[in-house]
Amino acid sequence: MSNTWGSLFKLHSFGESHGVAMGGIVEGMPAGFKLDVSALQQELNRRKASINTYSTTRFEPDELIILSGIEHEICLGSPIGFLIWNKAQKPQDYKSTHDILRPSHADYTYLAKYGLHAQSGGGRSSARETLSRVVAGAMAKQVLCHYGITVQSWIQQIGPLACKDIWDWPATQFKSESMCPEIDVWNHMQNLIETTQKQGNTLGGTIRCIITGVPAGIGEPVFDKLHAKLGQGMLSIPTVKAVAFADAIACTSKFGSETNDAFYTDAHGKIKTHTNHSGGIQGGISNGMPICIETFFKPISSIRSEQHSVTHDGKATTFAIEGRHDVCVLPRALPIVEAMAAMTILDFWMLQQLKQFKA
Amino acid sequence: MSNTWGSLFKLHSFGESHGVAMGGIVEGMPAGFKLDVSALQQELNRRKASINTYSTTRFEPDELIILSGIEHEICLGSPIGFLIWNKAQKPQDYKSTHDILRPSHADYTYLAKYGLHAQSGGGRSSARETLSRVVAGAMAKQVLCHYGITVQSWIQQIGPLACKDIWDWPATQFKSESMCPEIDVWNHMQNLIETTQKQGNTLGGTIRCIITGVPAGIGEPVFDKLHAKLGQGMLSIPTVKAVAFADAIACTSKFGSETNDAFYTDAHGKIKTHTNHSGGIQGGISNGMPICIETFFKPISSIRSEQHSVTHDGKATTFAIEGRHDVCVLPRALPIVEAMAAMTILDFWMLQQLKQFKA
Amino acid sequence: MSNTWGSLFKLHSFGESHGVAMGGIVEGMPAGFKLDVSALQQELNRRKASINTYSTTRFEPDELIILSGIEHEICLGSPIGFLIWNKAQKPQDYKSTHDILRPSHADYTYLAKYGLHAQSGGGRSSARETLSRVVAGAMAKQVLCHYGITVQSWIQQIGPLACKDIWDWPATQFKSESMCPEIDVWNHMQNLIETTQKQGNTLGGTIRCIITGVPAGIGEPVFDKLHAKLGQGMLSIPTVKAVAFADAIACTSKFGSETNDAFYTDAHGKIKTHTNHSGGIQGGISNGMPICIETFFKPISSIRSEQHSVTHDGKATTFAIEGRHDVCVLPRALPIVEAMAAMTILDFWMLQQLKQFKA
Amino acid sequence: MSNTWGSLFKLHSFGESHGVAMGGIVEGMPAGFKLDVSALQQELNRRKASINTYSTTRFEPDELIILSGIEHEICLGSPIGFLIWNKAQKPQDYKSTHDILRPSHADYTYLAKYGLHAQSGGGRSSARETLSRVVAGAMAKQVLCHYGITVQSWIQQIGPLACKDIWDWPATQFKSESMCPEIDVWNHMQNLIETTQKQGNTLGGTIRCIITGVPAGIGEPVFDKLHAKLGQGMLSIPTVKAVAFADAIACTSKFGSETNDAFYTDAHGKIKTHTNHSGGIQGGISNGMPICIETFFKPISSIRSEQHSVTHDGKATTFAIEGRHDVCVLPRALPIVEAMAAMTILDFWMLQQLKQFKA
Repeated sequence: MSNTWGSLFKLHSFGESHGVAMGGIVEGMPAGFKLDVSALQQELNRRKASINTYSTTRFEPDELIILSGIEHEICLGSPIGFLIWNKAQKPQDYKSTHDILRPSHADYTYLAKYGLHAQSGGGRSSARETLSRVVAGAMAKQVLCHYGITVQSWIQQIGPLACKDIWDWPATQFKSESMCPEIDVWNHMQNLIETTQKQGNTLGGTIRCIITGVPAGIGEPVFDKLHAKLGQGMLSIPTVKAVAFADAIACTSKFGSETNDAFYTDAHGKIKTHTNHSGGIQGGISNGMPICIETFFKPISSIRSEQHSVTHDGKATTFAIEGRHDVCVLPRALPIVEAMAAMTILDFWMLQQLKQFKA
Repeated sequence: MSNTWGSLFKLHSFGESHGVAMGGIVEGMPAGFKLDVSALQQELNRRKASINTYSTTRFEPDELIILSGIEHEICLGSPIGFLIWNKAQKPQDYKSTHDILRPSHADYTYLAKYGLHAQSGGGRSSARETLSRVVAGAMAKQVLCHYGITVQSWIQQIGPLACKDIWDWPATQFKSESMCPEIDVWNHMQNLIETTQKQGNTLGGTIRCIITGVPAGIGEPVFDKLHAKLGQGMLSIPTVKAVAFADAIACTSKFGSETNDAFYTDAHGKIKTHTNHSGGIQGGISNGMPICIETFFKPISSIRSEQHSVTHDGKATTFAIEGRHDVCVLPRALPIVEAMAAMTILDFWMLQQLKQFKA
Repeated sequence: MSNTWGSLFKLHSFGESHGVAMGGIVEGMPAGFKLDVSALQQELNRRKASINTYSTTRFEPDELIILSGIEHEICLGSPIGFLIWNKAQKPQDYKSTHDILRPSHADYTYLAKYGLHAQSGGGRSSARETLSRVVAGAMAKQVLCHYGITVQSWIQQIGPLACKDIWDWPATQFKSESMCPEIDVWNHMQNLIETTQKQGNTLGGTIRCIITGVPAGIGEPVFDKLHAKLGQGMLSIPTVKAVAFADAIACTSKFGSETNDAFYTDAHGKIKTHTNHSGGIQGGISNGMPICIETFFKPISSIRSEQHSVTHDGKATTFAIEGRHDVCVLPRALPIVEAMAAMTILDFWMLQQLKQFKA
Repeated sequence: MSNTWGSLFKLHSFGESHGVAMGGIVEGMPAGFKLDVSALQQELNRRKASINTYSTTRFEPDELIILSGIEHEICLGSPIGFLIWNKAQKPQDYKSTHDILRPSHADYTYLAKYGLHAQSGGGRSSARETLSRVVAGAMAKQVLCHYGITVQSWIQQIGPLACKDIWDWPATQFKSESMCPEIDVWNHMQNLIETTQKQGNTLGGTIRCIITGVPAGIGEPVFDKLHAKLGQGMLSIPTVKAVAFADAIACTSKFGSETNDAFYTDAHGKIKTHTNHSGGIQGGISNGMPICIETFFKPISSIRSEQHSVTHDGKATTFAIEGRHDVCVLPRALPIVEAMAAMTILDFWMLQQLKQFKA
């Protein structure tokens, strides 16, 4: 496992942040599907560091190169190999901290796991690893789109600042240049990021993701419940350490009579629920209502102020992190969240095609 | 996938709540390991409905029958088949609601998924499915115990009642008859359950689980981060819809300078962290500190009061649930949470044995 | 892996020959499929030891017990747990050889692998393990039958006696009581088995299996070529150590101009080939022609005459095998060969349903 | 599956013969292992078309480019991405046959499978796909070498010409420039290839592979028997349609008393067998004796003489294949056979490290 996501629609991923290239192999794109390759690049661009203050100053062109599996934008049914060259590596930025276990980084755990310390920075623990996810997720989105399934995410909270606690924003509320549906909250968030950047500190927050158009019946009953696998996907994103579906956390202190979602039949004869405490999933399987996921990001650990730690051989030391790092990962994380959601939904959607006997 | 958990230590599970038997196959128990089979039964007994008011009145003996893979308590290295007969099925309890989509149950989603409605109650969506998990988890616990790894869980919250927000309770605080470290909170919880039961209502809450003794280096860097897979495991438990590691939710509104865990070397030369906001996991890999998981349970959906819903063919109806159901799933869920934790940790522990080259 | 066959249609298997029960879990039977459960028992009966001289005198009722996943013969879409009790175990038969490494048995390799020696005879290496395969294979056959795919096998050779080297026997040639299409050859084979039985010796041979009605396009291009996976399936049957498709062995000494299969279009507009040296598979993918497999069985190793060997601690010894053993495994192996073929074809058939984009 | 080989040591492969690049991802190389990268290139060179008459005139530099997972020749434990650019594509060579189903090629089966026909020649069905196998196999070989395991292959037969039917050639018999242990037979084979090339025809044959130093205990008892998985690996090589272990085919017409391998203890106290009809594998598990595999290659289907076939829409036609093709695939297939053997053995070797309980 480890570097593979999915069972029918699959991404195999490779690449270290300061190595030669990032990349992967996508399996499961149906043969004959016409893929808009430029849209893959657009998703990469959404993830890219911008000139805004909130992100790293490592600017990578992040140009996607397709190596196989696609001919004249038609998927051949064969595996789609792809890569993105690393062009702005500066391993020297890591020299001063090379022997130091940076707090809440993966330095110590990688050392323990692999018994060595690569010179190439964070290795697989760098968020640069998520490039491959965005590419594969953008492919999945295009297939889902054909089946009327859309994936939309926004920043719900950064530090102490949060949007209204609602899930059903009208689509008109989302504009390409804003990251959340309430533009004034987003402006405050940007100010907070700027201030925090000057202080050499970092911020966390939450991202909400809503998936609409998923037909009822997608998901598996036991270990691979739809929300369990979506949850794993979200928790696998760097700095994410909690995940919740709809208002599940608030529900823990309520009565069942307050949290059950009553069914009704709508004007078109479609079965729906009045409320959506279930977040679109019951018994691990989609019920046709929007799927609502909230993902919790801890502040990133690369703060600029002096910190206490130990060296590889356990000696106490103080140090300050150099190099180029984001202040707040959330603006760049939106396409990553959507990628994990899209890949997971498509994988289960495919599996469902085999579940009922067709004579 | 779906009915299988794990990649090296594996459980394959089968059985419907109102079918003939529940059971499974465990693969990966190392040959030559001496297994205390009676301890497996004890874990099943922890999960059993008790005479307390908070649980269903369906009393099943839940006697474990081992079919293969063990001889004189020694694991042979072959798959361990096991079953537990269903003895107290009462499918007739479901007759009155057979044609009704019970709110927040899996009735509708199963119908959509499989295109049929089994007579045997909730099928795989019943919590009775977790019997197999408890058996396999109890095996995993015994192996982990040999390596100094322990898994402990308690009820942190039921409805509005919660224990103190701390993780490092002294072991003496846990008594077999109590479900949480603060005995007076537990007494209040029991009263609340009793009252709620009389009102025909149900309760949710949270369970905390702490895993100690895990060496640094366990877990995988990208998609199968240790907390991502533990998270999937927890989210796969019936009625769980959110999961968090340590204080990850609170961390989202703090600065990085407040949430980084500074390393130090202890008197025995072991590298530790002063705080544990990381919940024992950094970059998806264990750092040797206790692993801290909080699992959020929604109130169970089987309330006794009258509810509005629709029939299978979409007609509006009102009904009240009969049958035998728990008021609050948390007391019986402790061994299930521990089972998912134990299986997952053992699986990753095994994988780690292969990660470093040994000349 | 190891105890699991298939990726979408799956069998997980358990059970030692002299343990409590054999059994397994089948996943992937499509929900709503009406399964003839009595036909599963009939396939088990085909595999059973008969009163003929050629088989063991261990007579097991081999009664199939379904534990889950089926209600009123309708598959629910959930995993189908099943078992077959072991009733005629006689571990005492193995006492005299318990400390001896029987030549060409798995005694030594199991000891090396697991570091222990179970008292229960051959453990998983006994051909009794194939019971689970026959059950799952019989399910697969019923699904395939709905799609017009049939699996037929016969004994092609026993010892030096062989049928004509042709693949396209008319269906009328197969009678339930005979094991091969040439009844006189079968009579000679039976005589040979009887003679060999009296001499305390054993026999090998080959089984041919032909699968018709497979549409073109089933299989995968690289590692999981259809014949590669069918080959693994056949080689996993006890005592099988070679496998060939159509006349592949003879083709190695011919020219390409002699072994190419020319295409033509038949009267119904269907593309076929004049010859079938490809055995129905080109580039790892079915071409619509019959799939032709020959499976090579070594003589079973349980001969009654005195043999030289060593004990577990390496001391030279002589001994003679007691217990109940077949003289020639082929008559009972027909349903096993068919089971592996049917499971494999169904698995790939399912996978193919997802390969082309459907707008 | 399909494009992945292995479960712990894994290769994921991508690339079409006439696309941009071939490549793959290797997972499971143990961290800290010092890899001789130049030796990987040497294995690729062994597979390369030479100036000899027997091979295609498409000359590719086949230069290996490592993209990740290795730093200063030390494996980091992360996935090793790699690629080989396709530089000498000539899709125009396929224009004249573009609309024709070439006999015994995969044209028809790919069309049926994917519903489309790529312009890029044979796509994944080209033997160029095996480049990735050779790279990964060469890595596996280096790890095996550290554990004293060696993989050696030779051409046993081409067309009607064959070496002596023995397995235990002295190592001195293998010279780098010859492909089989009997130099005079190899000379005759080369003459036969030359003559056949002039006639526009093609040749098949067999390759033998012997793996020595494998400790007893490697392999799995049921579906993933060591020879079953080795068999799948061999059958997945283009044009291979049969596989046999040791003299398994000849054994089918013998008595058990002739084919059992008697155990003895050698001067060093090691348990061995006098004969090796088992080919080093008993009950699916290695017994410490050399593992003996024979792989049967059909003549390749690209003959130059005129052939009859049909077009994509089923119309009869005659045509002659142009383009650059091998006359006999066996000389270039040796490193491919070894690669599949090495990857498979290493995968099972790793799995075995987890099988016995270590207190």
